[in-house]
Amino acid sequence: MLNKAIELDAADPLARFRERFDLPDGVIYLDGNSLGALPKSTRERLAQVVDAEWGRDLIRSWNTADWIGMPQRVGGKIAPLIGACPHEVIACDSVSVNLAKLIGAALHMRPGRTVVLSEPGNFPTDIYMVQGSPAEQRLAARDRIVDALDENVALLMLTHVHYKTGAMFDMAALTEAAHAAGALVLWDLSHSGGAVPVDLGACNADMAVGCGYKYLNGGPGAPAYAFVAERHHAALVNPISGWMGHAAPFAFSDEYAPAPGVSRLLAGTPPVLAMAALECGVELMAEIGIEPLVAKSRALSEFFRAAMAEHCPGLECVSPADPALRGSQLSYRHLEAYALSQALIARGVIGDFRAPDVLRLGFAPAYVGFADCARAIEALAEVLASGAWQREEFRQRAAVT
Amino acid sequence: MLNKAIELDAADPLARFRERFDLPDGVIYLDGNSLGALPKSTRERLAQVVDAEWGRDLIRSWNTADWIGMPQRVGGKIAPLIGACPHEVIACDSVSVNLAKLIGAALHMRPGRTVVLSEPGNFPTDIYMVQGSPAEQRLAARDRIVDALDENVALLMLTHVHYKTGAMFDMAALTEAAHAAGALVLWDLSHSGGAVPVDLGACNADMAVGCGYKYLNGGPGAPAYAFVAERHHAALVNPISGWMGHAAPFAFSDEYAPAPGVSRLLAGTPPVLAMAALECGVELMAEIGIEPLVAKSRALSEFFRAAMAEHCPGLECVSPADPALRGSQLSYRHLEAYALSQALIARGVIGDFRAPDVLRLGFAPAYVGFADCARAIEALAEVLASGAWQREEFRQRAAVT
Repeated sequence: MLNKAIELDAADPLARFRERFDLPDGVIYLDGNSLGALPKSTRERLAQVVDAEWGRDLIRSWNTADWIGMPQRVGGKIAPLIGACPHEVIACDSVSVNLAKLIGAALHMRPGRTVVLSEPGNFPTDIYMVQGSPAEQRLAARDRIVDALDENVALLMLTHVHYKTGAMFDMAALTEAAHAAGALVLWDLSHSGGAVPVDLGACNADMAVGCGYKYLNGGPGAPAYAFVAERHHAALVNPISGWMGHAAPFAFSDEYAPAPGVSRLLAGTPPVLAMAALECGVELMAEIGIEPLVAKSRALSEFFRAAMAEHCPGLECVSPADPALRGSQLSYRHLEAYALSQALIARGVIGDFRAPDVLRLGFAPAYVGFADCARAIEALAEVLASGAWQREEFRQRAAVT
Repeated sequence: MLNKAIELDAADPLARFRERFDLPDGVIYLDGNSLGALPKSTRERLAQVVDAEWGRDLIRSWNTADWIGMPQRVGGKIAPLIGACPHEVIACDSVSVNLAKLIGAALHMRPGRTVVLSEPGNFPTDIYMVQGSPAEQRLAARDRIVDALDENVALLMLTHVHYKTGAMFDMAALTEAAHAAGALVLWDLSHSGGAVPVDLGACNADMAVGCGYKYLNGGPGAPAYAFVAERHHAALVNPISGWMGHAAPFAFSDEYAPAPGVSRLLAGTPPVLAMAALECGVELMAEIGIEPLVAKSRALSEFFRAAMAEHCPGLECVSPADPALRGSQLSYRHLEAYALSQALIARGVIGDFRAPDVLRLGFAPAYVGFADCARAIEALAEVLASGAWQREEFRQRAAVT
């Protein structure tokens, strides 16, 4: 297995990008789907922002360093990774806050309809945002979603790649079904953008949000992004109508007037330090290109799945077997998945656990290699065979699991 | 004037803190009310967060570096600056987004009441947030606010120190009047926290928000903070109900259940890099202490006001003459205030302009000295006497003014 993996790494056109990241020695990092690794360029860029732009140029940098244009500029660089036009994407706030904006916007665009349809087990913040909104929540299992679309549904809101299983929805088909029922669609791309093929334009998607700190490598808690198709820009109403989304924020008028297009999705002042870090991650992904990233992602997870079936046959894979139907991760069920993940971490293999029983391993194509996968499987096989995961120390739950 | 200023600097107990900031040579920075200066500790701390916590420890830092506890920890350090208890303050999102949360929360707490009362000319984002919310907006001039309180008002929402004039509301009196009318009060402390006396507890205030990037020196676009008095915690409903505000975010339940207290005001994942920078700024303000900061602020602005009256008598001061009635700034009216601010910047004196006709000069007490004030007035007197501000180059408006 390892020799084969080393051969695959030698032939990998993306292998050279690994040195563009700062990865610690002795660690195999299969958790880029939770927190992407540190691009080396980010360190330099942050030093420049802090020392020169903030420290030396101070308030002038809003103009001279174009801090004010960061949300649009970074959004525009994310756009090609998700099949959007640059003016349809903006980087701002968190996924949660952007969901609140777009749920509100969708209710405005579909007056008389009150339901937001999603699936049980969707990523919690997506569902919680509906529960906090004026909308009525409807949940339908993924194979019943089309049946649950009716004349009360304003918005179908789904996470494209499921955070736990990696299962990927058919974006084109579900978008078409929602439109046939008169509903809008909002795709959460948190586990998609930068790792799997996404073509919002070709799918005729209405809205999307996505995460900056996973496959985009924007840093812990990086700003998120939001997409609204151009055809909806004129009717777009942002209920979190802050001054940075105003057509003329520095006129300091008492009357809100929305900025053109997705710029009206801005609320407060852009978080400059975090935006600068996000921009570095996004630029690196854009430099590699989405097609090579997707190809490598599939090759990695296919290699991993086959080798796991051979070396750890007792672990049930809960991710779809067809790589075209899953994201850049593989999830395995084990009653003590938490302890298993901790025992792996003790051996330098970092994956993660998702309650109640899933061991989740992600393959960030920009910096994970085939030999990493082989070594992770060797470690996992050893942990399982030795029963090392049964040690008490691996069962102590930390605050963040 | 300058000799007197140099004497005052020599006797200033806060003078030693100036070297804790990285301020560029040749610049007199009177715009800390817009963007605070860079604490030297921030550079080191950010390098640590980027290199060690993100780059080396990766996802583990949510536990090992307590990233997950940052919002509560930083909020707790802000609390003593505003007369709050540590568990009543949380650092998160932007002022705008926090306003949206608390306006929503206030409407839930006062069922049957639909009005949010504020003043015309309040900082735009405050008013815009009401306009985007389900509430009905009512605006009353500052001397008519008490009269405008009635049984329809759910929330009186005011900015404690006015961003343009520096005029400061009587927090205790207005809070009492609002309570007498059955309304809640939300104070925007963006131009207060860290510079003027604020005692939310003694004033019996219900809610507050404030800015991290002005007097708290948290960096451009730093996270904001939100305060809710403990007596309201049980009834607190956050309409932007994200997973980080859940009682058990890592249980990944389909049902939202709010975390205790102000923790339920969290929505998305904390922005770690930005939070780390904010924490450095807050820690430095806490080290200096709010009472010395307030005393210095008043001394600076009183010195400036008196010297301006002598050296630039033609400029009308629109800030209250009594330092107990204004924030840490002085604002002067001039028909060409924008060009005036640009001509000053060309001489290394950075203040700012607020439309349509205000030149605004802020006195961040942690790093501005009396000699800075004297030299700024010399420059201003020279610009006015020479008519240098009339040059065309100073009239070209930048994107951010």
